[in-house]
Amino acid sequence: MATSTTPSSGRRRRSNRERIIEASLRLFNEKGARNVTTNHIAAHLGISPGNLYYHFRNREEIIRALYETGAEEARSGLTLPEGGRLSAADLGRYYLTGIEVVWKYRFFFRDIDELLLRDPLLASSFADLQTWMIEQMRTVMERLIEQGDMRAPDPVEDLERLAENGFILWTSWVRFLAASRPNLELRPAHVVEGALHNFLTFAAYVNPSFAEQVRAVLVARPGKASSHKSLRRR
Amino acid sequence: MATSTTPSSGRRRRSNRERIIEASLRLFNEKGARNVTTNHIAAHLGISPGNLYYHFRNREEIIRALYETGAEEARSGLTLPEGGRLSAADLGRYYLTGIEVVWKYRFFFRDIDELLLRDPLLASSFADLQTWMIEQMRTVMERLIEQGDMRAPDPVEDLERLAENGFILWTSWVRFLAASRPNLELRPAHVVEGALHNFLTFAAYVNPSFAEQVRAVLVARPGKASSHKSLRRR
Repeated sequence: MATSTTPSSGRRRRSNRERIIEASLRLFNEKGARNVTTNHIAAHLGISPGNLYYHFRNREEIIRALYETGAEEARSGLTLPEGGRLSAADLGRYYLTGIEVVWKYRFFFRDIDELLLRDPLLASSFADLQTWMIEQMRTVMERLIEQGDMRAPDPVEDLERLAENGFILWTSWVRFLAASRPNLELRPAHVVEGALHNFLTFAAYVNPSFAEQVRAVLVARPGKASSHKSLRRR
Repeated sequence: MATSTTPSSGRRRRSNRERIIEASLRLFNEKGARNVTTNHIAAHLGISPGNLYYHFRNREEIIRALYETGAEEARSGLTLPEGGRLSAADLGRYYLTGIEVVWKYRFFFRDIDELLLRDPLLASSFADLQTWMIEQMRTVMERLIEQGDMRAPDPVEDLERLAENGFILWTSWVRFLAASRPNLELRPAHVVEGALHNFLTFAAYVNPSFAEQVRAVLVARPGKASSHKSLRRR
């Protein structure tokens, strides 16, 4: 491959860039993006601040790079298969993929308002993703209706509202968890519970046996939705 | 009444406090709390900063006072009538009351993360409101099931998840609007549309004729839900 012929200095540069991205994601998720400076990241990696600045001029550039990777993962993971029947297993995996992106980039969803406010470029990019995701969620429902696995809401304009509800819950789940239990250490099970909440935005319109199969996929996942009755603060 | 015997200086003080509260709410809603300083508020009212500080030491104290008023309005407006049948009109009014609080205090919901982060007292108080509201939403559904106007979800633990979804949408609606259309001037119709989105979190479990009546109440309101198909950015 082309990369194997790259001079070693080029490889090292690229590799440092990747290490910065990976370390930043881990530190942002652990401590919150606002509590991690570029100096922290450089120190964590044992590189000089100058080396880090060679790749990223500031924290915002790192956040934007992480966002672009995450948005690409969301788009490729949530693009529906062309044609053919959408199975319950497809739909279950679809929700898990969506929530796995949320889990992987949870620092972003936790402080989404602040991050979008600070960076208009990021906000504009996220607005595009929002349009795309609502359209996808609507298409999922339209296909289920077409193949007879879901009844249409009445009036049918509710489809758009249900898709918007799904999107709002998708973006808000980590914030809800964080606000509900200030000292909660987020675990994958909490996030899978989010996939279930999200599916519930339209599960009642889905044929019971089909809905049952979707739930089975969600609950079968490692780090599955817990049996807790509530995430409310106690 | 006791107030009529209060010395006039006491009356004037109380009246200034009220004027500060009212002007702050208006300015916060128009410009966002972060863009309004106590100096702006004093200048707007034609009073000295010193006069304002006599009542509130800083902006956070004004926000807290507004929050307490809003939380009290939410609690008194959203307390369910004891016993008796819950009618579709009751439920429609219930959703409208909930969303009217959101509209009246929209500055708070628009920047809720930032405001709660800055003020742990506010965050703790809001966490209590969250617990109470989720419990109320759950009780609404339990009563509808009991009186035969709604089918129970299966499994029944989904009631808690549906109530949590309702709460998340309630708190997130203004943020969603603001993010969807950055230059959108929020109008009551957009917020009523939020009541409809919120009702949709469990409308599919409600008997169709009952659900139809609830929607009629929502749509009949002045500033009613618009006929737009989508709030997505275009």
